[in-house]
Amino acid sequence: MDIERKYHQRVQHTQSLLCVGLDADRAKIPAPFMHEATPQFAFNRWIIEQTHPYVSAYKPNTAFYEAHGAQGWRELRLTMDYLHEFHPEIVTICDAKRADIGNTNQGYVQAIFDELGFDAITLHPYLGQEALSPFLERTDKASIILVRTSNPGAQELQHLPVGGQPLWEVILSKVAHEWNRHGNCMAVIGATALDDLARARALAPDLTFLVPGVGAQGGDAEAVLRVGKASNGLGLIVNASREVIFSADPASTARRMHGQLMPNS
Amino acid sequence: MDIERKYHQRVQHTQSLLCVGLDADRAKIPAPFMHEATPQFAFNRWIIEQTHPYVSAYKPNTAFYEAHGAQGWRELRLTMDYLHEFHPEIVTICDAKRADIGNTNQGYVQAIFDELGFDAITLHPYLGQEALSPFLERTDKASIILVRTSNPGAQELQHLPVGGQPLWEVILSKVAHEWNRHGNCMAVIGATALDDLARARALAPDLTFLVPGVGAQGGDAEAVLRVGKASNGLGLIVNASREVIFSADPASTARRMHGQLMPNS
Repeated sequence: MDIERKYHQRVQHTQSLLCVGLDADRAKIPAPFMHEATPQFAFNRWIIEQTHPYVSAYKPNTAFYEAHGAQGWRELRLTMDYLHEFHPEIVTICDAKRADIGNTNQGYVQAIFDELGFDAITLHPYLGQEALSPFLERTDKASIILVRTSNPGAQELQHLPVGGQPLWEVILSKVAHEWNRHGNCMAVIGATALDDLARARALAPDLTFLVPGVGAQGGDAEAVLRVGKASNGLGLIVNASREVIFSADPASTARRMHGQLMPNS
Repeated sequence: MDIERKYHQRVQHTQSLLCVGLDADRAKIPAPFMHEATPQFAFNRWIIEQTHPYVSAYKPNTAFYEAHGAQGWRELRLTMDYLHEFHPEIVTICDAKRADIGNTNQGYVQAIFDELGFDAITLHPYLGQEALSPFLERTDKASIILVRTSNPGAQELQHLPVGGQPLWEVILSKVAHEWNRHGNCMAVIGATALDDLARARALAPDLTFLVPGVGAQGGDAEAVLRVGKASNGLGLIVNASREVIFSADPASTARRMHGQLMPNS
């Protein structure tokens, strides 16, 4: 199924644009889980049990799993198996920030889309559309391109002027109008620069944006919705990670954020 | 030890600028190795045994291992353990093309530099110097930034005009003059666009370039040396992958390429 449609169906059901980042940093996982044989999976399962009613997407970042080599990959796999079995209607995004040249990407396609079964992956744009074609040709999956990121130093390259426009705007236009010919592209637009989010929405009225940076990084959920929503009230996947999963009560934190992230508010 | 110095010492010993890409694609590994419990490692060990006298660096691309999940990571680990035990003087480059924001990169630093023990990693530039600082601060390792890649569609973004210069030149200048303050940066410059390689050498006279694209992708080793060498006859790590490891006789192919890639020729 088309991943955007899967997301919209889930949002209809939950009335939530919230994505929770499953960034199971072992240094921060509460002690009881660390006694388990698979602490990252045990923690993730608990987070999913606590938060799923308020959530339309989950987004593990591969860095936290890869840090532990084969064991980490096993725990990511267990997490995905659990989601597929108990919550197949929730969209799964692999925040892998990959991109290699041409056919080499088939390894990542196989790993992330086929073996782990993610619905979507985040990708670097720098090698161009041609390099990313193994991802873009997967019409059953979504390719989420890094465009305007949420980190403090994002502007160094992303705001370089290209014919009077910042580089990120040129890339966003390419993603929306050229790379998206199968309708399976989305873009990462950080919550930490609201002017740029508003500008992104003007440039790409119908594209779905994955918006990180709400909460711990300083972004404001209400403002993100105000300037970032598409005309149909959708078009946003708003991610929160640390501020949910490492909060004292992840269920109530997710419920509170859900209240701030309703599509028709 | 400084990785550039390690590389130079190895080049002094071998008189070779050849890097062999350990892209152990299971679909192409000869049948006898596929009967082993760890076919990617068994193949890599054989390639290393056949080629090491002619080689100054090995470069596994993570995509080919990640494709097989935890098992693939285990085989990459075995490959690295083997290199550390038997050929610790050969430089190891993880062609991972990673880059996340700030502290999230610590997961990759831990995985690639500390757990697997690679000397160097390839990185996407798009998130800027600030995001990459967990890599750049590792003065005992090398950060190899993607600048002008070898794929056919590289120009789509890399040649966008920024103040009269192509984007890749602006990034190369940043890498050489700003990001490299610890002297541990290198740049990826493909062998498939010789004019750009010559221009890169003019812009960054002392930076070491990792040059993929010789052989199967069409680049010419002799021409790469002519236009790409630094003034000291070094400054190049020239990679060949498929054309060596999947040739009928990897030892003689590596020896022949070594003959074309001598630093003082």
